[in-house]
Amino acid sequence: MSIVLGPNQYGKAEVRLVRVDRDTARHRITDLGVTSLLRGDFGATHESGDNTGVIATDTQKNTMHAFARDGVGSPETFLLRLARHFLAAPQVTGGRWLAEQHGWERIAVGDVGHDHAFVRGAAERRTALVHADDAGLTVLAGLRDVTVLKSTGSEFSGFVRDRYTTLPETDDRVLATDVSAWWRYETSFTEAAGPAEYDARFAAVRSILLKTFAELHSLALQQTVFAMGRAVLEAYPDIAEIRLSCPNNHHFLVDLEPFGLDNPGEVFFAADRPYGLIEAAVQRSERAGEHPVWATIGGFV
Amino acid sequence: MSIVLGPNQYGKAEVRLVRVDRDTARHRITDLGVTSLLRGDFGATHESGDNTGVIATDTQKNTMHAFARDGVGSPETFLLRLARHFLAAPQVTGGRWLAEQHGWERIAVGDVGHDHAFVRGAAERRTALVHADDAGLTVLAGLRDVTVLKSTGSEFSGFVRDRYTTLPETDDRVLATDVSAWWRYETSFTEAAGPAEYDARFAAVRSILLKTFAELHSLALQQTVFAMGRAVLEAYPDIAEIRLSCPNNHHFLVDLEPFGLDNPGEVFFAADRPYGLIEAAVQRSERAGEHPVWATIGGFV
Amino acid sequence: MSIVLGPNQYGKAEVRLVRVDRDTARHRITDLGVTSLLRGDFGATHESGDNTGVIATDTQKNTMHAFARDGVGSPETFLLRLARHFLAAPQVTGGRWLAEQHGWERIAVGDVGHDHAFVRGAAERRTALVHADDAGLTVLAGLRDVTVLKSTGSEFSGFVRDRYTTLPETDDRVLATDVSAWWRYETSFTEAAGPAEYDARFAAVRSILLKTFAELHSLALQQTVFAMGRAVLEAYPDIAEIRLSCPNNHHFLVDLEPFGLDNPGEVFFAADRPYGLIEAAVQRSERAGEHPVWATIGGFV
Amino acid sequence: MSIVLGPNQYGKAEVRLVRVDRDTARHRITDLGVTSLLRGDFGATHESGDNTGVIATDTQKNTMHAFARDGVGSPETFLLRLARHFLAAPQVTGGRWLAEQHGWERIAVGDVGHDHAFVRGAAERRTALVHADDAGLTVLAGLRDVTVLKSTGSEFSGFVRDRYTTLPETDDRVLATDVSAWWRYETSFTEAAGPAEYDARFAAVRSILLKTFAELHSLALQQTVFAMGRAVLEAYPDIAEIRLSCPNNHHFLVDLEPFGLDNPGEVFFAADRPYGLIEAAVQRSERAGEHPVWATIGGFV
Repeated sequence: MSIVLGPNQYGKAEVRLVRVDRDTARHRITDLGVTSLLRGDFGATHESGDNTGVIATDTQKNTMHAFARDGVGSPETFLLRLARHFLAAPQVTGGRWLAEQHGWERIAVGDVGHDHAFVRGAAERRTALVHADDAGLTVLAGLRDVTVLKSTGSEFSGFVRDRYTTLPETDDRVLATDVSAWWRYETSFTEAAGPAEYDARFAAVRSILLKTFAELHSLALQQTVFAMGRAVLEAYPDIAEIRLSCPNNHHFLVDLEPFGLDNPGEVFFAADRPYGLIEAAVQRSERAGEHPVWATIGGFV
Repeated sequence: MSIVLGPNQYGKAEVRLVRVDRDTARHRITDLGVTSLLRGDFGATHESGDNTGVIATDTQKNTMHAFARDGVGSPETFLLRLARHFLAAPQVTGGRWLAEQHGWERIAVGDVGHDHAFVRGAAERRTALVHADDAGLTVLAGLRDVTVLKSTGSEFSGFVRDRYTTLPETDDRVLATDVSAWWRYETSFTEAAGPAEYDARFAAVRSILLKTFAELHSLALQQTVFAMGRAVLEAYPDIAEIRLSCPNNHHFLVDLEPFGLDNPGEVFFAADRPYGLIEAAVQRSERAGEHPVWATIGGFV
Repeated sequence: MSIVLGPNQYGKAEVRLVRVDRDTARHRITDLGVTSLLRGDFGATHESGDNTGVIATDTQKNTMHAFARDGVGSPETFLLRLARHFLAAPQVTGGRWLAEQHGWERIAVGDVGHDHAFVRGAAERRTALVHADDAGLTVLAGLRDVTVLKSTGSEFSGFVRDRYTTLPETDDRVLATDVSAWWRYETSFTEAAGPAEYDARFAAVRSILLKTFAELHSLALQQTVFAMGRAVLEAYPDIAEIRLSCPNNHHFLVDLEPFGLDNPGEVFFAADRPYGLIEAAVQRSERAGEHPVWATIGGFV
Repeated sequence: MSIVLGPNQYGKAEVRLVRVDRDTARHRITDLGVTSLLRGDFGATHESGDNTGVIATDTQKNTMHAFARDGVGSPETFLLRLARHFLAAPQVTGGRWLAEQHGWERIAVGDVGHDHAFVRGAAERRTALVHADDAGLTVLAGLRDVTVLKSTGSEFSGFVRDRYTTLPETDDRVLATDVSAWWRYETSFTEAAGPAEYDARFAAVRSILLKTFAELHSLALQQTVFAMGRAVLEAYPDIAEIRLSCPNNHHFLVDLEPFGLDNPGEVFFAADRPYGLIEAAVQRSERAGEHPVWATIGGFV
């Protein structure tokens, strides 16, 4: 019996890259955190410290910087460029490239946005991931921490009542979550898509997710999560699968009775921990089965 | 020589209060973190654990909840209500009430915002503080972590060159900061202001701060900070003073020369730490002198 | 073609549970964050909001509290109790139970530790995970954020030099990382182990990891990571596999030459981001192949 | 009426400096985050962007690095060196230098600690602050986030019961806090103290704070806080004053009655927010009055 190296990856994480497009006086900025992780024939460095084949993590960072000189485009296309570059090295047989994009808006001056002054938008982030293995390249797009809340239109009842159940049923509650999602594009999409297509599709999917959250009368956060995913797959046949992870950010109705007051759904206490957690994949039946891209993504997103 | 209790305060911090106004089908939500700290005749609890005069921190939290039943109004007016309530107790001679407000926007469905579904806005927070001492009540309003960036229109040169100076001069850099500010209202404002006036004034001051950041050609972050404060005081005679704290969120131009590339202000590395820090008060000359409200606010904000 | 629910799980996350064992005057405390996620026949709640089979996340929390009344034992045995309880419900066919334990030490009073007063130890956490699927129960143990540093005994050279490489080779650097690891116990261990065995084994594995980090002259962080894992497998045949995730917390030697000073490995700047990231599984050859427990663990840990 | 610059300061914050003392094979490491803020004649940069007198924040960072080449000593003595250096510039009339020190312990190998391999200790930090104004230099020492817990020996009763009070009285609760404190040294101490004296004094004060927390039977967190401060002043006449800030980290006894179980002080839920907050200064009567050093320290610490 011998002890061997199993799956492994290495690289540079969270390179904070800000690209300014200044070809006209009306600048654009792209603000990314980029991670590059390589897989391949790296047994020697693990087993004996022989670094002959190692592309240093510092070099991976430099490569991002140099590539950004030509423009970033969309996060997905930038990661694909990185992936193809590193995969050209014979010892690299796969990898994982990840980006998180921070949003910026133009500062309003009078009725128009300023040419080169920006204010950070919501805390939510757009995400992208390119996965490479023997089967080729897979592109995921996603979003993180899109915090949403419904002040009515949410119920929760009919659940199991066992000896440890104390939760009352409710037909009107606050429902709040931080939506995180990853969706996987079919090659029919990725073969043709450029930055504009990736950007437009991201905006469209985000919009569907929010609209579905808003409009569905929710009987359970599970129902909302599944409906959000289904709506995306229904709208876009070239999205193969979507996975969502949604905490239930509890908002507890405060008991005001001790103070001689009622509380008809108006005063809530927002709890930090614990929180509910709902995670689900929504798939197309004929293609179900576990795609290898999910293997290194924690939880369901 | 004896050892004595000096200045002291106690209370409940970061009560996460969400108020839903649902008098019509078009709900409004107010999302606050509220802190209440009482000062007064509390020597006995410190010296012997005699809690006779202690208004429990749990009671302070309950009071916030009960008061929210009548509506929150603006953060400033909500804090003033709390202050007056607690100051009615004879052992309470002063205090400090603080709120941080999180922004929410309506989820867009088609062209309109949804009636009761919301998405969290920017990470920045609106803040308010009411300070009470023998001289009466003082109201501060403010904001925190308004992250802004200029991709040009910023220089830094002419500074001291001593034996530890290596920084080159630059006539074009990225300038980025997280604006935090507190401004103090004159009683001429607070005596007449209701929630609508506080809300409108907050929006107007925020707008001036951003517009000044955007439009000033900056020779130093200090110049930008002072100009931001001055513009607020110039616009509103009933604001007595403003204090700003602004980190310099360094964006370093990446040296691409080793890769045979130039970098004409396009590719930057955003650093986390260390960061510059610029803090300044902007005052009216005839009223300068240290107002006691600042004594328990860290740094300059 | 239809759209279907894929893999899914739900439950309560980060229940902050503190258990005091006070059967004698010398108290013991166990401080856990516990997460329970159920898998099984939950299609109805996702598809139509029919919650008939749903064990509420609030009930899952209550169950943890009630079970803690009988004592926690080790994190692993506590999670196993929870797993077996929930798996007794027919609609539950699997799940994932996770604990993070915070360490406390007795406050020293004179030469001895106090009976009932404690001070929080290092920021690192002990972790445990029980995974249930059709194949039965799997137990992982682990640790997170064990921050370690070597001030010498680390080199990095011989790596690829391509057109994007600028990193100089070094034969003496600071090597620092935050060790996170998960190891999987064979059933030969879990069938016999009680709390004492789990506790002892955790302490022993942690000790091996640290000792190996300290003693190996490192030619690459990859080499150190693999050696740490191998040492654990060599010591304990009933550990089937171990996975490690180790950021390279860069400590850059400061260039003091502009100030007329040398810097023989004495003054370093500790960077936050970006950081290197080394992740690897160490396995026994005859049993390699992907165990399903890893599918929902992000990265390699 | 004109608008003028009020109090202001600027500098470099959170320089992450790691110093390795390697004069023998048994290395020592000092891990600091250092902030330098200058005050003085800086009106020109604020008002017109004239940076003639500005010592760049980058230069302040470089100075820290260069000074570290000679060794750090204790945080207090390192800050004093920085202060005296910057105060030698005529335009600098005051300032504030701050350090936070992270603790490291030697990795145990067999019975002894390793020569050059270290593991990070508790999350708590040692702090130091040097304040300079016209009256000279003032030295504060302190600590942050020393998390402590008593599982018994704490009561809370006899407090005000008003219409918003629901909290029951208790004669046995868990008391937990994160101790943060600053103490101010008399010049009689600072005139003679070198690194060894500062280090020894820090350890002694920390020990008194913890011992007092552990041994006092507490009737209120206020009583504990005051007793901790008083014990320090009683032990050391050359400490003029101490200020403490202590959240009440609530541990709520879980109600197990719905499950047919009692809960004799054994199962607790640790809440994140809201938390109580107790802040107090402990002073010597003959010297009371507000020392200017506190003006820019938030809250009471």
